[in-house]
Amino acid sequence: MRTLLIVSHPDIIESYSQQYFLNGIKDFSNITVHHLENLYPDWNIDVRKEQELLREHDRIIFQFPFYWYSSPPLLKHWQDVVLEEGVTHGPRGGILEGKEFGLVLMIGVSEKEYRAGGNEQFTISELTKPFQAMAGKTGMHYLPPFEIYQFVYTEDDRKMDILIPYWQMLTMENNDSLATRENWLMDLLEDVINTSEGTDEQNILEYAKNIIEENQSEIEDLKIVLNQMYHR
Amino acid sequence: MRTLLIVSHPDIIESYSQQYFLNGIKDFSNITVHHLENLYPDWNIDVRKEQELLREHDRIIFQFPFYWYSSPPLLKHWQDVVLEEGVTHGPRGGILEGKEFGLVLMIGVSEKEYRAGGNEQFTISELTKPFQAMAGKTGMHYLPPFEIYQFVYTEDDRKMDILIPYWQMLTMENNDSLATRENWLMDLLEDVINTSEGTDEQNILEYAKNIIEENQSEIEDLKIVLNQMYHR
Repeated sequence: MRTLLIVSHPDIIESYSQQYFLNGIKDFSNITVHHLENLYPDWNIDVRKEQELLREHDRIIFQFPFYWYSSPPLLKHWQDVVLEEGVTHGPRGGILEGKEFGLVLMIGVSEKEYRAGGNEQFTISELTKPFQAMAGKTGMHYLPPFEIYQFVYTEDDRKMDILIPYWQMLTMENNDSLATRENWLMDLLEDVINTSEGTDEQNILEYAKNIIEENQSEIEDLKIVLNQMYHR
Repeated sequence: MRTLLIVSHPDIIESYSQQYFLNGIKDFSNITVHHLENLYPDWNIDVRKEQELLREHDRIIFQFPFYWYSSPPLLKHWQDVVLEEGVTHGPRGGILEGKEFGLVLMIGVSEKEYRAGGNEQFTISELTKPFQAMAGKTGMHYLPPFEIYQFVYTEDDRKMDILIPYWQMLTMENNDSLATRENWLMDLLEDVINTSEGTDEQNILEYAKNIIEENQSEIEDLKIVLNQMYHR
């Protein structure tokens, strides 16, 4: 699976959270990071090139700061010019049909404000309807969004924990089962082991991988026993 | 009541519907038409001037084509830079507190598609949550939106009918009672009579105004009779 991460931020260099997350995925070969403000400082979007990129990827992600409950202006402009009836979508389908779509939102206030009675009054699910409608119109499957609340105030040891679900949002099959998460982790470990050849780290990771493999076969054995007992 | 009509359209000259509606209000002295793309072709928004304009008006309207379920990029940019915590809004209130806010949406598909099962899947009320949240956050009262569906396909004699509720959206007190509508109409007639001095039109309009005044006093009389009967 290849993921196109379309990032929009008017001032990304100054954004600590954007830098943190983009830095956290620089070793992933199956993610294409596509920062609109960097690529198109003059707003002259290359529509054919963007449509080609969409065609080449299976999962499309919009990552942006959630100012005034919506995307930055350049991402809206991207939607207005790149999403073209007859190409990306249309009554007879287009290049986006069947792909997955998701949002990664950097949010400046705390999660509890996004509900009736909270300062923001509405939930993220309510406020992102325009993106859900876009996914529907273009035939894409809408993934649960990944919401990052007040990242700058997050303690350092908690920050690392947020990276794992972020990686999963970008690269893991959309299925939260133990088997899916385990397979995803095994692939990730494999990658890391290959790039850390000859180091102590490699031994530790190999060891962790073996333990997980042992666990997996034990689970398989237990399932067989359980199945036999059930059919006795 | 003074109304600030903030219009955003990337290509307004080419838009028949925008031209039609803007032309229809050019005689209203209590509406300030403020077309962002014209005023700020370089996107260099004068934040203080915009905030001053907001301060001077009682009703703030955003008028734009509803592409991808949201506003054009420049209007989003306007929100991002003009709506400033501590000035326009904030925990202790700001200049927008107590004003009215509304949307005028030009929509390219038919009304029936905006519902579960329709092509657009969601209602306009669902899709405009970000604007409702903005009104809430800034302490403005959210008016029912004025939605114009497929205006180019509307027959000519129907087009005029759409102008009246548009005028009301921009200038009438937010109250649909007969008395409110009648008072609004009388003010409007007064204005038109003053500007048509010496023409045949003036006589006709004066006559219409007298008839309405007679109706009004008849209604008042009937109410008094009814009241007396009730208390007998």
